[in-house]
Amino acid sequence: MGNKNVTAEIIAVGTEILLGNIVNTNAAYLAEKLSELGISCFYQSVVGDNAERLEDTIRLALQRSDVILLSGGLGPTEDDLTKETACKVAGAKMYCHEESKARLIAYFEKRGLTLTENNYKQAMIPEGGIVLTNNNGTAPGVIIPFENKHIILMPGPPGELKPMFEESVAPYLRKLTPDVILSQTVKVCSVGESMAETMIADLIDTQDNPSIATYAKTGEVHIRVTAKAENEAQAEKLIKPVVRELKNRFGNNVYTTREDVSLEAAVVELLKSCDMKIMTVESCTGGMVASKIVNVPGASEVFKCGLVTYSNKAKRKLAGVKKSTLEKYTAVSKETAYEMVKSPEVWQKADVIVGVTGYASAPEEDPSKAGLVYVSCNACGKITVKEFKFSGNRAKVRESAAVQALVLARQCLLEALSEKTFGE
Amino acid sequence: MGNKNVTAEIIAVGTEILLGNIVNTNAAYLAEKLSELGISCFYQSVVGDNAERLEDTIRLALQRSDVILLSGGLGPTEDDLTKETACKVAGAKMYCHEESKARLIAYFEKRGLTLTENNYKQAMIPEGGIVLTNNNGTAPGVIIPFENKHIILMPGPPGELKPMFEESVAPYLRKLTPDVILSQTVKVCSVGESMAETMIADLIDTQDNPSIATYAKTGEVHIRVTAKAENEAQAEKLIKPVVRELKNRFGNNVYTTREDVSLEAAVVELLKSCDMKIMTVESCTGGMVASKIVNVPGASEVFKCGLVTYSNKAKRKLAGVKKSTLEKYTAVSKETAYEMVKSPEVWQKADVIVGVTGYASAPEEDPSKAGLVYVSCNACGKITVKEFKFSGNRAKVRESAAVQALVLARQCLLEALSEKTFGE
Repeated sequence: MGNKNVTAEIIAVGTEILLGNIVNTNAAYLAEKLSELGISCFYQSVVGDNAERLEDTIRLALQRSDVILLSGGLGPTEDDLTKETACKVAGAKMYCHEESKARLIAYFEKRGLTLTENNYKQAMIPEGGIVLTNNNGTAPGVIIPFENKHIILMPGPPGELKPMFEESVAPYLRKLTPDVILSQTVKVCSVGESMAETMIADLIDTQDNPSIATYAKTGEVHIRVTAKAENEAQAEKLIKPVVRELKNRFGNNVYTTREDVSLEAAVVELLKSCDMKIMTVESCTGGMVASKIVNVPGASEVFKCGLVTYSNKAKRKLAGVKKSTLEKYTAVSKETAYEMVKSPEVWQKADVIVGVTGYASAPEEDPSKAGLVYVSCNACGKITVKEFKFSGNRAKVRESAAVQALVLARQCLLEALSEKTFGE
Repeated sequence: MGNKNVTAEIIAVGTEILLGNIVNTNAAYLAEKLSELGISCFYQSVVGDNAERLEDTIRLALQRSDVILLSGGLGPTEDDLTKETACKVAGAKMYCHEESKARLIAYFEKRGLTLTENNYKQAMIPEGGIVLTNNNGTAPGVIIPFENKHIILMPGPPGELKPMFEESVAPYLRKLTPDVILSQTVKVCSVGESMAETMIADLIDTQDNPSIATYAKTGEVHIRVTAKAENEAQAEKLIKPVVRELKNRFGNNVYTTREDVSLEAAVVELLKSCDMKIMTVESCTGGMVASKIVNVPGASEVFKCGLVTYSNKAKRKLAGVKKSTLEKYTAVSKETAYEMVKSPEVWQKADVIVGVTGYASAPEEDPSKAGLVYVSCNACGKITVKEFKFSGNRAKVRESAAVQALVLARQCLLEALSEKTFGE
């Protein structure tokens, strides 16, 4: 039970952010999470690996906010000063935390790496601090309670910061605010952000609690419904009718209302539910669709195999695309996309075969074709091909194409299932 | 010609950044540009559309920096307060800038849109301010000189901010500083960050200009050498011997000294240089290695095909792993990894075949095996298998495995090439 209006600020520490070498995605992640927790964040800042300026920044933050979230600067090198500086501000001494030291030694032993003296620095913890276990790296995080405020130190790499926030920091912050903030996300595919906003403009305008916010993701829109209430049951009661209304409006384009379910996980679940298997035949995405599917735990039950047929020869030899088709229509055509999923000449067919071919960057012969992508799907024998024109750089086009391949696989599978049901 | 050590800071204005709805990419862009101009940027911050907090933030920035770059909050709505607040701080009155007003009217007419009264707000300019024409939107930018400092206001959309910076702000800033800052990055694989730091501790300790900083990436370490000089040639002269020394110390583990070359791009370049082709056979990475290679422009010249053999059946049918091997040693074993790259039963062999098999998350039969990965490479007939034990969640283990597959491919290829050279 704590302060009614908890305020927070986010400080990213790192010269590489100040130099523009990396984009500060941690701040966006933390900001979104704070908002979900009902904690107001009025400032974000970035400061380099400089003790004096970092100290000033922390002191200023303590004057104006209750919770200070720092990321970065917990590494083993001399440049890493966050813990030392936070301790100085809070007047806390450090001691060697034996459990963290043991974890550190085990981490290095497991990898057959040599632990150098400077690594032990990472096991030093401020007295009175709460250690946050790092299951994805060497630097533990720390919460330093200080004069009714909370200084929270987390490692900089997003792969370490995000799980640590979810596992340890979010539960800690939840206790600071008496209101229960609950949110549910309605994840929508096949609809753009501005279209989605228009479709629910009336809801956004009239709602206050729960509030409704849209977040544009690659190929998806996430609509978050957030309610503030005295207890969880009341918050749920506020959220439920709004989620129901959103499901009504977006119909089949809602692929999940669960926070932890990605588009690929929804596809895997759908395949499992009807005991079907999928395979992929990829050109410009080069294995990205397969990789997304394999990232879902338990994907082995539904994933048959994947082919990366980037060259024309591979398209012919592995996917069974006819030479005449490639010559007449080229590798990036709806005809090639169609044949890629028609009957891959390898092994045996899956129930759902999804294919992608396109120009991830501008082809020499016609630069205007950059971003032109064909996505195809063979669901129980029925083939659908869709054309897209994506913008952005090579990586962005490939990511968009991979997402749309999953969207198409889901759509075709749903259609195949509904036809099957009606046919029976 | 101006001040020797010009300092700047970047303030992004916008509640949507504070809520995490959008990532602050403008800051990364401006930071990189400032660094190129030799202007030291010690702070970045983000503040919402709130007059009081914005005023405090600008006042603080003026205390510690020479140049304040603000982005966002120049729109026509009541929420857009940046210009008004900056004027308040600088004690400047606003007047209607006729040229900007005329541009505004023309902009709306051209698009057949109706100009509303609040739009004229965008043509109001502080007295003494320098107007920065916006060729990509409605809001002009402004530079407000104030007590030897420079408050620079730019619109928030990156498509407007970037061209305005290039066309008007950069030339203005260039006059403020005589120095040039140049940096070069030495990218190292097969060596951990703390090991790398230990290996160059003497250089880091003694160097001031150029400065040396290390950055840990998944499976890699980047060492950045940054010099400040009167001109580009002198900066290059300072950097060169340090980069040479780093190359000496890390030898073959340096895969590039070019900013824009990734590990996968280095592998593609190496393959191109010796006219060899690569193929991938992936289990737990599920196409991620292939996808990384395909993300390199021109990969088609060296990438033969990729197989995603996630199930045992696919390992047998596509990769030609013997049933007895899978039964005796299991799918995650050095024997299976070996056979995956020995002679994939598909189509024809590549010069380099790289394979990955492992547990991305904890297997039911023995959870302690989570993160156990075998990476194999067949380079011109010689097969090498390496065992790793990665930690982290499913995505992290897979990313680490994919990077180590590329590292091994590079090592084996270099070995094969050196043997070939010595053999001749």
